Amino acid sequence: MVGKSQIKFIKSLQQKKYRNQKGMFAVEGIKTVQELLDSNFEAYRIYCCDARLLNADDDVIELIPETDLKKISSLKNPNKALGVFKVPSPQIVGSDDWVLALDNVRDPGNLGTIIRLCDWFGIPHLVCSENTVDCFNPKVLQATMGSITRVNIIYTDLGRFLKTSELPVLGTFMDGESVYSSEFTEKGILVLGNEANGISSEIETLVNSRISIPQFGSPTTESLNVAMATAIFLNEIRRP
Amino acid sequence: MVGKSQIKFIKSLQQKKYRNQKGMFAVEGIKTVQELLDSNFEAYRIYCCDARLLNADDDVIELIPETDLKKISSLKNPNKALGVFKVPSPQIVGSDDWVLALDNVRDPGNLGTIIRLCDWFGIPHLVCSENTVDCFNPKVLQATMGSITRVNIIYTDLGRFLKTSELPVLGTFMDGESVYSSEFTEKGILVLGNEANGISSEIETLVNSRISIPQFGSPTTESLNVAMATAIFLNEIRRP
Repeated sequence: MVGKSQIKFIKSLQQKKYRNQKGMFAVEGIKTVQELLDSNFEAYRIYCCDARLLNADDDVIELIPETDLKKISSLKNPNKALGVFKVPSPQIVGSDDWVLALDNVRDPGNLGTIIRLCDWFGIPHLVCSENTVDCFNPKVLQATMGSITRVNIIYTDLGRFLKTSELPVLGTFMDGESVYSSEFTEKGILVLGNEANGISSEIETLVNSRISIPQFGSPTTESLNVAMATAIFLNEIRRP
Repeated sequence: MVGKSQIKFIKSLQQKKYRNQKGMFAVEGIKTVQELLDSNFEAYRIYCCDARLLNADDDVIELIPETDLKKISSLKNPNKALGVFKVPSPQIVGSDDWVLALDNVRDPGNLGTIIRLCDWFGIPHLVCSENTVDCFNPKVLQATMGSITRVNIIYTDLGRFLKTSELPVLGTFMDGESVYSSEFTEKGILVLGNEANGISSEIETLVNSRISIPQFGSPTTESLNVAMATAIFLNEIRRP
């Protein structure tokens, strides 16, 4: 049985404040919990309705009835398991490959998709400004589909990070040079900005080259969503 | 004031069955309603809480209080206006440019994003299998951001459509030829499949070339989401 204080603790992890305080986060669903168990992430406690569904150490797993899972879950239809894991220590961001940097991306679905794209395109490091949505937010975790275990994500003062890095900084702007005529160096930092306002003026001053994706449709069109733009930029960086 | 029968009528348009029956659909929010008013779409009735916010003919607009908007809206926080428009007659799909075809795409957010991408990349025609999610579904409309007015979308028997078209048919598969080594013809049909199962076996037999997006990260990675894949394929088709 899951006691009252445990329920309160697990529920509190839905909020960033408590995740930071406790250095833990919760994920849901057999598939994602198993992916985290199979990764370098350290499990604190795994709550599961059917032990045969998960491959986990006995000392970390706790068998609970579906009614208890409902009490600790943030989902309408909980899926058999909830895992509490320790927030991993961020690794140092290397300078031997491309780094993706996000300046105030707010939408959890967008961040989740961007993490998946980093994973697909083998981008090892994702550097987020401190006001970017937290990657351990339940909606982000749901959208990453386990990719979070394969991308090193750090939250930091983005301006300071860009200033101290020796890598060239590419920023994405509506009025930048066409991505098709840009010659990509072997490594660098690619910065994408906020959904509504793009890259902030503070970060803009630290950008060495401005790039953009040409528009082929009617010029009245909305700009591309930040996750769509990331897909296209990473594809351009990686294409031989 | 909005009467009971009007409320019932507008609410019914949240369901595909009634949209088809009545040949109408509803959209919400000042920006999207205005975009549809400014397009070729024919307005049936526009409900608005503040006439100064919209530029519409007097005979089509109806001023209502916020309490009435709440009654007809499908949103938690309705945004000042709801417009009922006639479903446009689909145009004939031309054979002078690329056509995007969807085989059983189910997620409204994905379809909305794909419509936006067609708009951005100037793809005039989107052909959907009959089991693809309806483009006048409220969640799709919310995700398209007005792009729906600039893309001709038809629902049809996709197998029959591919059989009768003279354009080459490209299908996207995990084991296809790399999109980077594919030479794109000037026009053709690009087919993307269902979120979980990809392209169905019936449609697969009608595909002339199989293409895919190479993976650069760990080989255990999830496949790319269908909207992400569409972004990358359309970019590859259009890049000079």
